[in-house]
Amino acid sequence: MTAPTDTLLLREQDPRGVVTLTLNRPGAFNSLSEAMLAALQTELDALAGDESVRCVVLAAAGRAYCAGHDLKEMRAEPSLAYYRALFTRCGKVMLAIQRLPVPVIARVHGVATAAGCQLVATCDLAVAVETARFAVSGVNLGLFCSTPSVALSRNVGRKTAFEMLVTGEFLSAGEAQARGLVNRVVPVDALDAEVERLVASIVAKPRAAVAMGKALFYRQLEMGVEAAYQTAVQTMACNMMDAHALEGVQAFIDKRTPQW
Amino acid sequence: MTAPTDTLLLREQDPRGVVTLTLNRPGAFNSLSEAMLAALQTELDALAGDESVRCVVLAAAGRAYCAGHDLKEMRAEPSLAYYRALFTRCGKVMLAIQRLPVPVIARVHGVATAAGCQLVATCDLAVAVETARFAVSGVNLGLFCSTPSVALSRNVGRKTAFEMLVTGEFLSAGEAQARGLVNRVVPVDALDAEVERLVASIVAKPRAAVAMGKALFYRQLEMGVEAAYQTAVQTMACNMMDAHALEGVQAFIDKRTPQW
Amino acid sequence: MTAPTDTLLLREQDPRGVVTLTLNRPGAFNSLSEAMLAALQTELDALAGDESVRCVVLAAAGRAYCAGHDLKEMRAEPSLAYYRALFTRCGKVMLAIQRLPVPVIARVHGVATAAGCQLVATCDLAVAVETARFAVSGVNLGLFCSTPSVALSRNVGRKTAFEMLVTGEFLSAGEAQARGLVNRVVPVDALDAEVERLVASIVAKPRAAVAMGKALFYRQLEMGVEAAYQTAVQTMACNMMDAHALEGVQAFIDKRTPQW
Repeated sequence: MTAPTDTLLLREQDPRGVVTLTLNRPGAFNSLSEAMLAALQTELDALAGDESVRCVVLAAAGRAYCAGHDLKEMRAEPSLAYYRALFTRCGKVMLAIQRLPVPVIARVHGVATAAGCQLVATCDLAVAVETARFAVSGVNLGLFCSTPSVALSRNVGRKTAFEMLVTGEFLSAGEAQARGLVNRVVPVDALDAEVERLVASIVAKPRAAVAMGKALFYRQLEMGVEAAYQTAVQTMACNMMDAHALEGVQAFIDKRTPQW
Repeated sequence: MTAPTDTLLLREQDPRGVVTLTLNRPGAFNSLSEAMLAALQTELDALAGDESVRCVVLAAAGRAYCAGHDLKEMRAEPSLAYYRALFTRCGKVMLAIQRLPVPVIARVHGVATAAGCQLVATCDLAVAVETARFAVSGVNLGLFCSTPSVALSRNVGRKTAFEMLVTGEFLSAGEAQARGLVNRVVPVDALDAEVERLVASIVAKPRAAVAMGKALFYRQLEMGVEAAYQTAVQTMACNMMDAHALEGVQAFIDKRTPQW
Repeated sequence: MTAPTDTLLLREQDPRGVVTLTLNRPGAFNSLSEAMLAALQTELDALAGDESVRCVVLAAAGRAYCAGHDLKEMRAEPSLAYYRALFTRCGKVMLAIQRLPVPVIARVHGVATAAGCQLVATCDLAVAVETARFAVSGVNLGLFCSTPSVALSRNVGRKTAFEMLVTGEFLSAGEAQARGLVNRVVPVDALDAEVERLVASIVAKPRAAVAMGKALFYRQLEMGVEAAYQTAVQTMACNMMDAHALEGVQAFIDKRTPQW
């Protein structure tokens, strides 16, 4: 660990460039306080410009994965301006994850609720343990999870999303996988191996191809199909001109391993 | 029942503000005649402004749920202007359901076809019996279910939707759930209990939070993710300033039940 | 067969107007060389204006379904302009499939990778054998499947799509069906029967209704719900004025088979 255990957000980087960010506020179920959001934003900004980074794992300490916003903090400042600023800041963190040039994998070892569920939905990939559960439960307190709904409804169908939002009830890990919120569900003791499987696959690919591809992926999702093809064509042509792709394709033709 | 049994659309309201609208034209499989559409529009308009209403259940009488448009009526007026007006009126009913400030639950006890399937797809939530079946079968008569496709393709994936539209074949209740058209599938004798489970969950939440959230949910679905967050932030900040949310969050902090 | 076996793209038409196009470059896993793309475009252009055609089956010869672009050909011309032109041409073929007035069914008897997977995603319907597998594996060579991602992400959820794109790993046929990439998965010896089941259903419908409906279906998917209804209303009103629909609806009322 590169940070003391009383740090809100732990950062660990392995020799391959795999960064593990660990939400480290277990006593508060890793809730996204202002300080936690600021720490995340700072790390994400730094990661965005760090060419040595290849992949990010977003983990959490303690029993829960993330319980969403810090309700005590929120309740203490009952003003529209404050809430606007807070939710805007949280949305920026989510967009920063989506805009990061490397894939972000949620390592979900426990309950993820409200903005915690939004975090899982926002990550490019998610691996969850069988006992993980997901809810957008703000409505139970009279606060409909409107900002989490943005990410959730871009992962699961609208009937499922609406039911979760209006009932506040939990989705099991298995159901979350069937509905598209997480990629893999595994027993607790297989969690790290399954995350590592994805990580190893990602770091084996050229960084530039993944960066170009990720950016294009989210951009084209918001376009009509014709415009989507126009932008995808540009990305793919640029990608093909990259030395890694030229070598990769040549290696395939030569039936050998690419020399990257 | 607040209406005689020869009324097209029955309306029942319980003390909690749960309104059950029952399509009551069983001899015509509850088809959406001009009169039925007008009755639905009138009720929906009234419900939209009625603060005592908390939730709507859309049920139907007889063996079928709803067979779509009234074909006899349609065939009797073969003019483009008539059909335009008719389908426009039907689309308005669908949009009125989506815009209603309270959730609408389809209670699907039987077959739902064409605009009847569209009705299920349009409701915020849907509970179906195991024997319910769903089709957009107009194509069997040479009339592709174009307007139903709008709602259907916003519930299920495009390959499933296209297959249903071009073959006119039925989707079973189980498949409808797996694909996202309905939330729950239950045995016939568990239908009312399952609908009530959702209803009870909804009426336990503050009305304003649900109304704000529902409106935001459908609005943000049509936006890019950045614009979606911008509008969701406004909604959620306003929601948090509502007395119910402030009390709900305070109650959570105090580990007590909210005093709503 | 209407073409010799050394022809890149075979074309067969049965008396019902069912055209089977067969990618016939088995030695190269039916890869989409420039010549293959040109042959596809030529056929699709001809089919678009041929009123005798009712349905297209897109099949392939040999062990694989389609391995995507021809990598040898691509590697031989390392220029941005060439790649832009190539991917643009491929995107045009995909859009031509979507714009064809008749349904296109992918008959997937083997592996479909990269632009081959894109082809399956682009077809209106797809039937696959149990042993078929699907991948967007360009990333393994350093070439992220950006253009395939356009079609793939319009069939399956974003977490599934992103995982496939970044890992390059295969999706089994069963998983492809569960996720929405294919409609049906069958044993090898049931493939033709299952394709024929869909074909027979399609040719039993009036051509005009299917053509109007298919065009509307893809158009409305790119619109907000209100605009989608406006355009769907026009389509459905025009459809209803068609003699086939008027007769189809009358026949339904008369409880007889339509005289088409």
